[in-house]
Parts: sequence; C-alpha cells; structure tokens
Amino acid sequence: MHLEEATWTEVRDTNPDVALLPVGSTEQHGPHAPLSTDARIAEAVAREANGTTDAETVCLPTLPVGVSEEHRSFEGTLYVSPSTFRSYVGETLRSAPADRVVVVNGHGGNVDALHETCAHLTRDDDAPFATYWTWWEAIDKEAADVEMGHAGAVETSVLLHLDPELVGEPLEGAESWGEYIEGAPLAYDTEEFAENGVVGDATRSDAETGKKLYDEAVGSLVRLVEAIADL
Amino acid sequence: MHLEEATWTEVRDTNPDVALLPVGSTEQHGPHAPLSTDARIAEAVAREANGTTDAETVCLPTLPVGVSEEHRSFEGTLYVSPSTFRSYVGETLRSAPADRVVVVNGHGGNVDALHETCAHLTRDDDAPFATYWTWWEAIDKEAADVEMGHAGAVETSVLLHLDPELVGEPLEGAESWGEYIEGAPLAYDTEEFAENGVVGDATRSDAETGKKLYDEAVGSLVRLVEAIADL
Amino acid sequence: MHLEEATWTEVRDTNPDVALLPVGSTEQHGPHAPLSTDARIAEAVAREANGTTDAETVCLPTLPVGVSEEHRSFEGTLYVSPSTFRSYVGETLRSAPADRVVVVNGHGGNVDALHETCAHLTRDDDAPFATYWTWWEAIDKEAADVEMGHAGAVETSVLLHLDPELVGEPLEGAESWGEYIEGAPLAYDTEEFAENGVVGDATRSDAETGKKLYDEAVGSLVRLVEAIADL
Amino acid sequence: MHLEEATWTEVRDTNPDVALLPVGSTEQHGPHAPLSTDARIAEAVAREANGTTDAETVCLPTLPVGVSEEHRSFEGTLYVSPSTFRSYVGETLRSAPADRVVVVNGHGGNVDALHETCAHLTRDDDAPFATYWTWWEAIDKEAADVEMGHAGAVETSVLLHLDPELVGEPLEGAESWGEYIEGAPLAYDTEEFAENGVVGDATRSDAETGKKLYDEAVGSLVRLVEAIADL
Amino acid sequence: MHLEEATWTEVRDTNPDVALLPVGSTEQHGPHAPLSTDARIAEAVAREANGTTDAETVCLPTLPVGVSEEHRSFEGTLYVSPSTFRSYVGETLRSAPADRVVVVNGHGGNVDALHETCAHLTRDDDAPFATYWTWWEAIDKEAADVEMGHAGAVETSVLLHLDPELVGEPLEGAESWGEYIEGAPLAYDTEEFAENGVVGDATRSDAETGKKLYDEAVGSLVRLVEAIADL
Amino acid sequence: MHLEEATWTEVRDTNPDVALLPVGSTEQHGPHAPLSTDARIAEAVAREANGTTDAETVCLPTLPVGVSEEHRSFEGTLYVSPSTFRSYVGETLRSAPADRVVVVNGHGGNVDALHETCAHLTRDDDAPFATYWTWWEAIDKEAADVEMGHAGAVETSVLLHLDPELVGEPLEGAESWGEYIEGAPLAYDTEEFAENGVVGDATRSDAETGKKLYDEAVGSLVRLVEAIADL
Repeated sequence: MHLEEATWTEVRDTNPDVALLPVGSTEQHGPHAPLSTDARIAEAVAREANGTTDAETVCLPTLPVGVSEEHRSFEGTLYVSPSTFRSYVGETLRSAPADRVVVVNGHGGNVDALHETCAHLTRDDDAPFATYWTWWEAIDKEAADVEMGHAGAVETSVLLHLDPELVGEPLEGAESWGEYIEGAPLAYDTEEFAENGVVGDATRSDAETGKKLYDEAVGSLVRLVEAIADL
Repeated sequence: MHLEEATWTEVRDTNPDVALLPVGSTEQHGPHAPLSTDARIAEAVAREANGTTDAETVCLPTLPVGVSEEHRSFEGTLYVSPSTFRSYVGETLRSAPADRVVVVNGHGGNVDALHETCAHLTRDDDAPFATYWTWWEAIDKEAADVEMGHAGAVETSVLLHLDPELVGEPLEGAESWGEYIEGAPLAYDTEEFAENGVVGDATRSDAETGKKLYDEAVGSLVRLVEAIADL
Repeated sequence: MHLEEATWTEVRDTNPDVALLPVGSTEQHGPHAPLSTDARIAEAVAREANGTTDAETVCLPTLPVGVSEEHRSFEGTLYVSPSTFRSYVGETLRSAPADRVVVVNGHGGNVDALHETCAHLTRDDDAPFATYWTWWEAIDKEAADVEMGHAGAVETSVLLHLDPELVGEPLEGAESWGEYIEGAPLAYDTEEFAENGVVGDATRSDAETGKKLYDEAVGSLVRLVEAIADL
Repeated sequence: MHLEEATWTEVRDTNPDVALLPVGSTEQHGPHAPLSTDARIAEAVAREANGTTDAETVCLPTLPVGVSEEHRSFEGTLYVSPSTFRSYVGETLRSAPADRVVVVNGHGGNVDALHETCAHLTRDDDAPFATYWTWWEAIDKEAADVEMGHAGAVETSVLLHLDPELVGEPLEGAESWGEYIEGAPLAYDTEEFAENGVVGDATRSDAETGKKLYDEAVGSLVRLVEAIADL
Repeated sequence: MHLEEATWTEVRDTNPDVALLPVGSTEQHGPHAPLSTDARIAEAVAREANGTTDAETVCLPTLPVGVSEEHRSFEGTLYVSPSTFRSYVGETLRSAPADRVVVVNGHGGNVDALHETCAHLTRDDDAPFATYWTWWEAIDKEAADVEMGHAGAVETSVLLHLDPELVGEPLEGAESWGEYIEGAPLAYDTEEFAENGVVGDATRSDAETGKKLYDEAVGSLVRLVEAIADL
Repeated sequence: MHLEEATWTEVRDTNPDVALLPVGSTEQHGPHAPLSTDARIAEAVAREANGTTDAETVCLPTLPVGVSEEHRSFEGTLYVSPSTFRSYVGETLRSAPADRVVVVNGHGGNVDALHETCAHLTRDDDAPFATYWTWWEAIDKEAADVEMGHAGAVETSVLLHLDPELVGEPLEGAESWGEYIEGAPLAYDTEEFAENGVVGDATRSDAETGKKLYDEAVGSLVRLVEAIADL
C-alpha cells in the first residue's frame, strides 16, 4: 500500500504490519548526477519492495532533505542539522500507521542520526519498533566490481538504470572519501578533498550493473520487511 | 529549474533569484480523497508556476509531512510538532540556493508555523527573505460557487482535475470547521466535529471547476514570484 | 475571585471552575496611546467579566509581555520570542487552580502562539482544557462604524472610556496592516508600513463608542465563561 | 517614567539610562496574606524608587509569575520552570529601552534564575548590563527585630503598611525554612515543613515597622539605580 | 564501594543504598594552586567518606568540568553552561545504581545548578531522591581562623594536606569576592576584582589546619550519608 | 602538560598547541572487568601520549560518563543522552586552552556523538578545530590475533597490562555484537544478545598482548598529535 495514494479508510481497513519510510537527501552528486540522487534511489527501492513483498506493508512519502552539511559549498545542496533531522524523522515515525517501521535510507550522512532516532523510538513503549536500512550496504559491490564513493560507479549505475535521462557524462573524482591521520578525520566538508564533488570513478558505471545492484537491494529489503512482519 | 533534476553545476550556472518550496501534509482527506492531497496540490501548483514564470526560479522538493495533529485519530495521518516543522522548514530554506524564498503551502494547519518561520528568517541578515503563500487563499471561491472546507468542493475539484484516478465517491461532511463559543475554540481535533473527516460538501466538486481554480492559483503564484524577483 | 487578592485557603475553599488569564503586550500604540494598551484592555475586560459572571471563576494576574517583535523598532516595545511566550503562558496555565482555563487576549500577535499552546494543553490529559478569546473579535465593529487597525478607532475608543487621562491627541496612521502580494506578506515589521506606528484612523474614536464596545466584549466573555463552566 | 503609561514617542524622547523590572511571584503566603505578596511589594518598591530617584529611569511592567514550584501543593500558587522564567525575564530585558537594567525582585525562589540570567546578558555584548536586587536583602531586619521567613513578620509588616485591607489575621508558622542534614536539603517543597505555608512568626508584624522597612528598601534601591546610572 | 573499580555483578550483589557523585570544576585557583582544586578535594572527601561510613554506599566517578564561566579569562579554565551542567549531572544521577544520591560538591559556582537539578529529580517519581552537599559549608572555618575566599586559606590548607607537591607559594589575593552596590552584583567575572585570581589570603594556609578541615568535612559527609541511608 | 596539575599561570606561559580530552564511559564490562574500563584506558593512553610527544600538548581531565544507554540493564552503568553528551563535550572543548583539540575516545557508543560535535566545532570560526580518535581503531588487532568485542580479548588484555588487580577471571561472551537482518539492527540493548555483558572471548587475553596493543595505541596517538600540531 502506497500511503500517498490511499485514503484514511483504506489504511484503517488494511491495518499494515510494517511501514517503510524512504529518506534521502538533496545534495550535490557531482556535475553528472542529479541533486535528488539519494532520495530518488531510496524511494525507488522502497516502493518496489513495498509492491513486491508478501508482507502487509505501507510505504510513506519520501523525506527529501537530510544531514548534508558536508556538501554545503556545492550549490543546490539542501540540509538541516542532525538534531532537526532526528526530530522530523522521529516524529513522523511515531505517527506512522504501523507498530514496526523501517527507514529506507539513501544517504550515508543520515546513518548516525537514524541510529539514534530508531534506538530512541524502540526503547519507548509508546512508539513503534524502528530500524533503518541503507540500500548500498545490502549489495555485493565487490562481485559487481564497483565502488561506492560519492556519485561514483555504484550510484551512477543505478541511476543509469532508473533515470538515464537525468545522468550526464560520468566523471572521475577524488580517490577516497576524506582526509584522515591515524584514523582521525581532518576534514568535515567535501570540498576539502573532492573538487567536483565526486568520490570514486563514475566512468565505470553502466545501466546493466545498475539493474543488478538495484534488484539485489530490492531483494534484500523484501527479505527484511518480511522478517520484521514475522517478528 | 527543478532542483531535484538539476546538478550542482547547473544550479551554480543558473543562480536563481527565487526558490519555491512546496509544503503540504499527509493527512486524512475523507474516505474519498488521498492522504497526500495537500502535498500533491501544493507540488503541482509550484511546479507549474516554476515552469511558466519568466523569473529565474528553482522549485525545491516537496516536504510531505506537516502540522496535522488535529487529524491524528484518522489512520494514515502523519504529523510532526509545530516546533519540529518550523525547524525543518526553516533550516531547509536557509540552505536554499536563492536569497528570496516562497513557501507554496497546501495545508491550513501549517500557516501559523510558516508565518513564524518566515518572519524569523527575514529578520535574520544571514538568511534569505522568506514569504509563504497558500494556494486556496489566492482563488475566487465565491465566483466558482465552491467552499473550501476540508476535502470539500475546492480540494476535491482540483484533485478531479489533477489526479481523477485517486478520487473516490465524493461525500458530504460536517457543515463547518470546528466548534466555537463567542469565537473561542472548544475543539482542537477534527474527530470532535467531523465523523468521516470531511468538512463541507464534496459532492459539489467537478473537474472543470477544479481546472479553473487550479489555473487561477498558478496565475497568482506566477505573479507573486515575478514580483518578488523584481524586489 | 481575583487571585492576586486572595489567600491560598480562599482558593482552596472556593475551588473555581474556570480560570481567566489576561494576556496582552507592552508595545507601541502610536504617539497617542500608552504602551500598555493591549494588557490594559485585556485586564479590564477579564476582571469585569470575572466580577460579573454567575460562574465560579478566578482571574489570574495579567501577563504583560507578549509576541511583539514586529514593533521592536519603536522605543519602549518589550517582546519575547513566540517559543518563550508559549512556555510562559503554557506553564502558568498548567499551574492554574481550575481544570478549565480561558486566555483573555488583547494582542493580535499573540494569537498563533495561544492557539498552539491551548491545543497542546487540551490534548494533554495532565493539563487543563484551555481556550483563548481575543476581545475585539467578539464585538460588532461594523455596527459601531469603527475599524480595528492598530491603535486605531477601536482601541483608542475603549481607552477613552477606560483611561482617558492616558490618551493623547488621536492620529491617523497607515491605511492598512502590512504589505502583501497575492496574499503573501512582504513585510514583518510595522515600521515598514506605518511611520508613526498607527494603523487606521484613531481620530474617529470617542469614549461613548468605547463604552459600547467594552460592554459588548465583557458580555461576550461572560457568556463564554458561563458556557465553559457548564461543559 | 512608568513604561505602562508612556507612549513610544515619550520613551524615545526621554531615552532612559536605567530600566527597572519588578519581578515577583503568585504563590501561597499563608492563610493571612495574598497570593500576590511578592509581586505586590516588588512593584511598590520599584515604582516608588522610580518616582523618587534623580536618575533617568523607566519602570517596566511587573512579571507576576516566577519560580514557585516549591509551593505547588498550596492552591492558587502559579509557577513556571526555572528555564522558562530565565527565558521570559531574559528576553524581556533584552528588549528594554535602556542599556542598563535592574531586576527588582520580591521572591527568594527567583534569585538563582536571576543570577544566571543577568550574568548571561551582561556577558553578551548585544544585551544590556543587568543586575538584580531583592528588597529584603537591603534592609536591616535585625534592627527592626523581625525575621524574614515566608509570609512572616517582615513581609506581613510591609503588607500592613501598603495594603492592610488584604491582610487577614497574622499567624505563626514553621520555625525555619526547610529540613537539612549537615547543610544538605532533604525537602524541596514547602508542605513538607510548613503546614499552613507560613515560616516564622507573622504575629510580630505591624504597619509601623512595615513602613520603616519599606522606606529603607526604597532608599536602598534609589541609591542603587543612581549608582548604576553613573557607571 | 568504588564504582570505577567494581564490576556490574558486584554492584548488583551489593545493591547500594546511597550513591555519592563528586562534582568539582577545572578552573583557575591562583598562581599557586592547581586547576583541579575543586574536583580534587570533592573527590578526596567523597572517597574517604565512602570508605569510612557504615552505610552501603557507592562512590561514582568525579565530574571534572562545572559552571566556571566566571573564570574564563584565566587560561586553563574549562566550563560548560549551567544548562548543560544540569543535564549532565541530572542524567548521570538518574542512571545511578541507588535510589538516593548525594552530590559531593567542591565548587561554589555549581550550587545553584545543583539545587535546581536535585529538586527536579526528587520531585520526579521515576528518579532518585537527590541532595547536594558542599564540603566547605560543613566545616567550622571560624574555629580554624581561616576564610574561604577562592584559592584562599581554606582550600590551600586542604591542598597542603592532600597534595602538597601541587601547591606553589601561597599568595594574597583580592579582599573579597565580587563588587556589589546595595547587595546587587556589578561584576560577574573574576578578572574584574581579582587580578591573580585569588580571593582571600592564602599565605595563612598550613597543612595541619588543612588536615583538621578535611577530617571535619569527611565526618560531616559520613553523618549525612548515614542519615540518608536511614531515611 | 597535565591540566589537572597545572596552575593557570603555567598554562598561560606554556600556551599549548593541542589539547587532548580523554572520554570514556562507566558501563558494564562483563563480570570480570571494571565499569571504568573505557575511561581508564582512554585516560592512560592520552596521558602517556601527552607525556611522550614532542608537540606542546595539554591533557584535560577525563570525562567519565558517556553514551551507554545500551548497557542500562546491567547494574552500575551510568549514561547520559547523546544530546547531553554532545553539549558537555562540545562546551568543554570550546573552553580548552588550545585552538586544536583531539578527543581520545575509549567507547564505541560515543563515536557518532563525537563526530557530530567535532564537525560542528570545526565549522564554527569561534571554536577550535576538533577531531576524535578511538584507541582500538588504531591498532593491528589481526596481527595480535585478538578481537575487539566488548570486554573481550583486546580490552581485557590492555587491562591486564595496566591494572591487573582490577581484572577477574576472563569469560567468554556472545559471539558477535547485536542482532541484524540484512544489515538492519533488531536490538539496541546489550542484554538482548549478551547475557553476561561480554561480547567475544576474553579468555584469550594476556598482559603481554595488552602491552603490545597499548604501546601501538600510544604510538599512533603521538603521531596524530604531532601531525596536528604541525598543521
């Protein structure tokens, strides 16, 4: 069930077991990929799993703005503070029409905030059990011989599968995410280590790989929601 | 320019004068209209104005969850506190790629929070000038012989124009919004005065009226953003 | 019962049904009317209704500082943020010696904050039922042929009835409140549209009209508290 | 200058050096004294000093609700949290029409919060210099052979001077404030050690002593504001 | 029982009646005494009482940073806001393995915040009973002919007893703490009245007096925790 | 320089380049290791690096209570909310006597909060550059053939090197940290997957390995602070 298209009486009559909340970001993804990349992929995966699973699930609307301050120097990046993000996600989940919720996440910068939010809700007897799942953690990137990076081969491939008309000429970017000494971060903003905003080599992207990764992600999410529905 | 489809380099090169932020809600709209009604119409109007105006505008992604606690007893309604809504909208606007922003609003319950947020940003020299506009305030409901209500003839007509496949059999609802004595509210939750969630008479809806109202709203918003671009 | 003059044992023995909390502001009211105009009228109306009604009511002390940032450029205006105002009013009401409370309001800028506060309290089982009433919304301004404005004919007339020695030469001010395009506000501070702080034509004021309006307001509030005492 | 009776143009033309903010509480003062005792005395002293001093001062309206949770079990006591009190006082002082402010305090429970608030404002270059003064700390209670307590001989005497019609039969109360072991408090609420709410012996009150104490307090405050005006 | 050296199973098996939380500060104590003076003495007293008392107590780890903004201009002073200190102390106490807790305090600047925190916890049925005790309030300074001041004869003497190797040449400092007119503070930061940071005459310190004062403090705390264990 | 033993004049004269803040937790570490394990190791490593490095560093006092709610069901665990921890750490770092700070962390549950805090400080021009380093991330656990776990072979070995008298009979615990489906966490509290609180096999601990790991950690931290001092 897709909440945005349902009426309240349909939700009442269906009484879903698990709610999915797609969460992404609106942030730079290099000169070749759209600002909505993270929200777009999270939404596509969540909706497809929602339409595929045997569990009684409901997919909530996508929250498009996340914890992206690290990209703030690149035009078009939208962001809120971690504290505001936690409140907005957490209160939305509290009001969800199911007592088990899964945040379907498309942005690495959201993960810490989602962990804190989901733990807090789950410990509260008056709130739903909550967990979070990040799509690219669920796929076998090594088998596909692609690296995650940022706007790199993994994300660009999936975009070439889902929305090829939104993808420009894929580019090479910085070799790795961030600067570290002895494991301690020296830089918190992307512009300090990635001139065009890309991390990794997006020229290694193709739509076929993208389809494979996407299908893997959907399969993983389907297994997760079915397991949670059975808890 | 539609931010979700643009890259950061396109935003940088365009350098928009005015950003539009569609804001709605996900809340009950009676047994005949979808939970996304408010977000859906705000988004449609904002995107159409964004694509029509002569001003250099950018349309941001739609924020789908608003101040809807009054509908909480109807299944599927999502809501956050006014305080969290103010923070999420306000910080999103602070990061917008324009120094003038217009919130395009589709939900009455958001208005007070938007006023407070936009005033606060505008008074802050480090934040954009911000204003807010609610689509049904801009149309001549009397001329069209329809009343606003909630999921009533105005909203249902516009939905019949935009997304007829999502609209069920329109219904009659409560005669008026809320209970008052001497102008003081006695009830804060919809269930206290509207059994099926509808206020007004949605049976008076039709798609033709909806198109007229919608076009009027788009026209008004176009005039607003052009005026603001010229400030 | 007037709380400020009572002892705790008298409150215990009386056990009031409804508490009235006058709330105003201390803000510019033009060169002719005192900064306390809003608090003064709210207090007078609340005390008179409290002394007149057949219900068992208690009038709390007047809160003199409200949401008046819009007048900050006029000397002598005091203000707190909406958030602080909500907390101060809300916590005061939680501690009130009655399980039904009515905020008697004298300042338009307080209304949004009072709505949010009263809804929040009413939804909380551990707090009193709360509503708010703004005196000039309860009177027939058209019948009296006066307009509200700010420090305009309505307020100045009531002041001429209540405290004529505090009123200087009434003045004309701006023709209307604020600047708008297509219903969207362009200005949040009074100085942008009212040079002397007045909105409307205070030269149309007189004490006789003031007495009429004042009596109407008191009558309306008496009816409200009696209805609430009977809920 | 009394702010409540002034217009904004008068404040602008006078341009005061020091603002006085009377702050009290609305809380039980035994079965013989009014709930407004603390606000009432603070207001009287502040207004008299304001009218007497040679400095250019302005007296702001009295804030009637303070940090009185310790009296919550006695009917009619109003209170806010220390945090809300700090915000309401602090923001009011920030907006005061003078760059030096003195809080004229009538309630012991407010002192810690006033210290924190005044220190915070004074350290902020964008806020006024702020200090606070509690009337009974400034008088020679030993010379007058009266003890402070709560609703005891000091407060009751001053009330007998200022508002004798509001004072009932003075009573004896608990011998001392609170319960302590080795200096550590065991009780935070008055009801745990004072059955009728009184601490000290109010039967030792008389109006003549009250006048003496009151005049002393006013004299002290006058000296304070004159010194601050000269800083 | 010393919590830092215990395992969770030992705490479970012991099930203490009272928890002690040493709280100090890291702030300037003149050119002769270490920045940790307040934390160091509070910790020593708490641990000794914990090891001496007949009650079943547990000593928690020392919180080293307190409300010391007044010393911020002296290098090495660490501080947090009163609000953050209240939260950190209060939440630590909520999680303590006993339903009665005593904060053993070594810094005057913490007292107001501790009062507010302990009152708040004690009034909350889901939190432990909490009180606070400041070591130098419990000793007979007059009998020992020493004055408290800041890094003065009392503190320096105790340091000479506990950690003589950390004490340099004791110095004379300002004659009294702060500047006041009519009891109202004019200065909130130490640098305004104490050039080297010392208040009082530390040259009057000696280790023997320090031992005496220290033993007195420990004795007082032992009596306190035994009384609280018996409540 | 060890801040706790220094005077303010010594700090002023030394003017350190980098401040180290040890941060740990007080939480269950199984039936064999002390509750202070995380704080104890972080403190030891920080102090040793501070005493070894050629850079001008200052070691601040250890913050003993962290983000440990996941262990709350095991007696003796102390914890604060992530929000309070961020404030306490962040404000302490703001007041540190160096414009570059390194948090030396001993508890995995603190990492997300430290990242957010250090990023926030570093982005603020009025705060120091801040980074964080977790000791066991810096060592070659594979080479030493030990696994981290919780109170497992890594931590227990280091304790056997540093404080053998505090270590009981090492135990085996749960095989892995937490329960997950498809990478999504199902449990947020340790008790759900580790009956005695241990994760990993502490019976594989020995002091010699502990010394090796400890020396590695100190070496890594020394290199980090020297690099940061040279930035």
